[in-house]
Amino acid sequence: MSAAPVRAAVLGAGSWGTTFAAVLADAGCEVTLWGRDASVVGQVADEHRNERYLPGVRLPDAVGATGDLRAAVEGAEVVAVAVPSQSAAAILAPLAGSLGDDAVAVSLMKGVELSTDRRMSELLAQTLGLPDERVAVVSGPNLAHEIAARQPTATVVASVDEGTALRVQAACATGYFRPYTNTDVVGVELCGAAKNVVALAVGVAQGRGYGHNTRATLVTRGLAEITRLGLALGADPATFAGLAGMGDLVATCGSPDSRNHVLGVHIGEGMTLDEALAHTNGTAEGAKSSRSLLELAQGLDVDVPITQGVVRVLYEGQDVDEMAAELLGRPHRPDGV
Amino acid sequence: MSAAPVRAAVLGAGSWGTTFAAVLADAGCEVTLWGRDASVVGQVADEHRNERYLPGVRLPDAVGATGDLRAAVEGAEVVAVAVPSQSAAAILAPLAGSLGDDAVAVSLMKGVELSTDRRMSELLAQTLGLPDERVAVVSGPNLAHEIAARQPTATVVASVDEGTALRVQAACATGYFRPYTNTDVVGVELCGAAKNVVALAVGVAQGRGYGHNTRATLVTRGLAEITRLGLALGADPATFAGLAGMGDLVATCGSPDSRNHVLGVHIGEGMTLDEALAHTNGTAEGAKSSRSLLELAQGLDVDVPITQGVVRVLYEGQDVDEMAAELLGRPHRPDGV
Repeated sequence: MSAAPVRAAVLGAGSWGTTFAAVLADAGCEVTLWGRDASVVGQVADEHRNERYLPGVRLPDAVGATGDLRAAVEGAEVVAVAVPSQSAAAILAPLAGSLGDDAVAVSLMKGVELSTDRRMSELLAQTLGLPDERVAVVSGPNLAHEIAARQPTATVVASVDEGTALRVQAACATGYFRPYTNTDVVGVELCGAAKNVVALAVGVAQGRGYGHNTRATLVTRGLAEITRLGLALGADPATFAGLAGMGDLVATCGSPDSRNHVLGVHIGEGMTLDEALAHTNGTAEGAKSSRSLLELAQGLDVDVPITQGVVRVLYEGQDVDEMAAELLGRPHRPDGV
Repeated sequence: MSAAPVRAAVLGAGSWGTTFAAVLADAGCEVTLWGRDASVVGQVADEHRNERYLPGVRLPDAVGATGDLRAAVEGAEVVAVAVPSQSAAAILAPLAGSLGDDAVAVSLMKGVELSTDRRMSELLAQTLGLPDERVAVVSGPNLAHEIAARQPTATVVASVDEGTALRVQAACATGYFRPYTNTDVVGVELCGAAKNVVALAVGVAQGRGYGHNTRATLVTRGLAEITRLGLALGADPATFAGLAGMGDLVATCGSPDSRNHVLGVHIGEGMTLDEALAHTNGTAEGAKSSRSLLELAQGLDVDVPITQGVVRVLYEGQDVDEMAAELLGRPHRPDGV
């Protein structure tokens, strides 16, 4: 089956946006990458490289670039967005109502907008003026530099509309990038936000000198508490056991260079939150998300001891060893969710 | 509540048996450790150390040792067994019918007996002449040397009889070792056997040069196939999401020094199975278990692509890249179990 190539835009020329643009091109799309930084855009357009965010990688010829946001989405059937979550609404505002009638938007972003508690797919639909059925989310064990090296990787494409998920799946499937579809958008996005809190807790434990047992216990019990929270929100439990849940959590917690993990390590080694933030360039999604998630869980009467422990250590000055003792000292009870 | 200390025996003075003896002692038991090696037994009895299997660790005073199997279990209310799974039946045969009327046996072993396909708890019950209700299994993210260093660790105590699980839980709970109870013995033991196959697959991927995305995908899809197999055997799906399932899998796959992982790395780097076994002292449970599990799955008509891939690479000379391409090239379908 041969057809005209799908036209795609990727907004955001950081490492993940640039990598996803390469995946789309490898899958047969004609891709335009939009970025704010003129030197990055120029290098992608002229030399098919992005040395600042993806050093050493040669991008496919089918990846073009522009600094003009409207031009990037002109005629695009798939518009993927990988800009910082807290500035996404402002960046995308000029595009309100301007996507084609059949275009779908794809969130590559994690986290929630702090000022509104909107999930990223909600933000995309509202800002771009699209029905939820035309928005999808891509999330999974997807460290960008490994995908850019074309290592075998699986992911999840979620949309409330299965047809939209299938369209995005077809647009980005390659020999090395294998997307599974899912209609549980709430579950997938909750996993994406909550995993950073668990990665932070794992970092704290490592910084304190604890090993693989503690880490595996935090990852397991962390996924259990994310799952409990998801069930209370009406999400599908299978999502949490899948690639966007367990998969992303294991990849993130296994990767020593994630910002949340590094922040946690500094805190486990004895730094205050401010000191640790100063050592990690001030951005660690898990530190922001932990309080939002705790509030959400408390409102739903869901027990989230690891998230609570992270909030206490980060914001209430609790000692790490006290937190560990509390987590271990909770009443003995049967295993499971 | 103060009572006379529980008398416990641990059979097998390797690193896990010795560590569990220390845990029982820290939990208040009087413990006798049995081993075959007279020098190890002598060092434990006289100096409270086991430098061969647990270097640098001072064992609690309440851990004694003997080379006399019958003397070890004399009067013991809890008899934990950590001997090699393939020789367990022969080692324990002299104890048939000799445990006290109220004694419980605890399996610390992983895998199945190849000649009979018995799970370790079945082997214990049959060899010792105990009803299933007096047998328990301890399994979880439990790397021995971390527990011996008294790092915070959680585990699962499973028995078909909840009272037995609770007795064992009480006997081994300490400030750093937190046992959860479970009645799904089949699920817990299946996880213990199958995780080694996934650890081997993860090692192969790492040896081939793949990173965290591939590893997390193998761990996630590996747990999904173990769960499918468990459901077909009547196990409880919650077990697989818990500490004995996901927890042990994450700890094992995250630990670079597990034998199964190392064996896999050698094979991923291009060695044959025989060459790789020669480099790992010839014992890697996952290589043995992979064929038994594949047969079991095929008999139940359960799809286990990762286990099948391991069998093909180990025993049928399939190329690792072909296996990766096959795993990724399977028909696209929804995410989940």
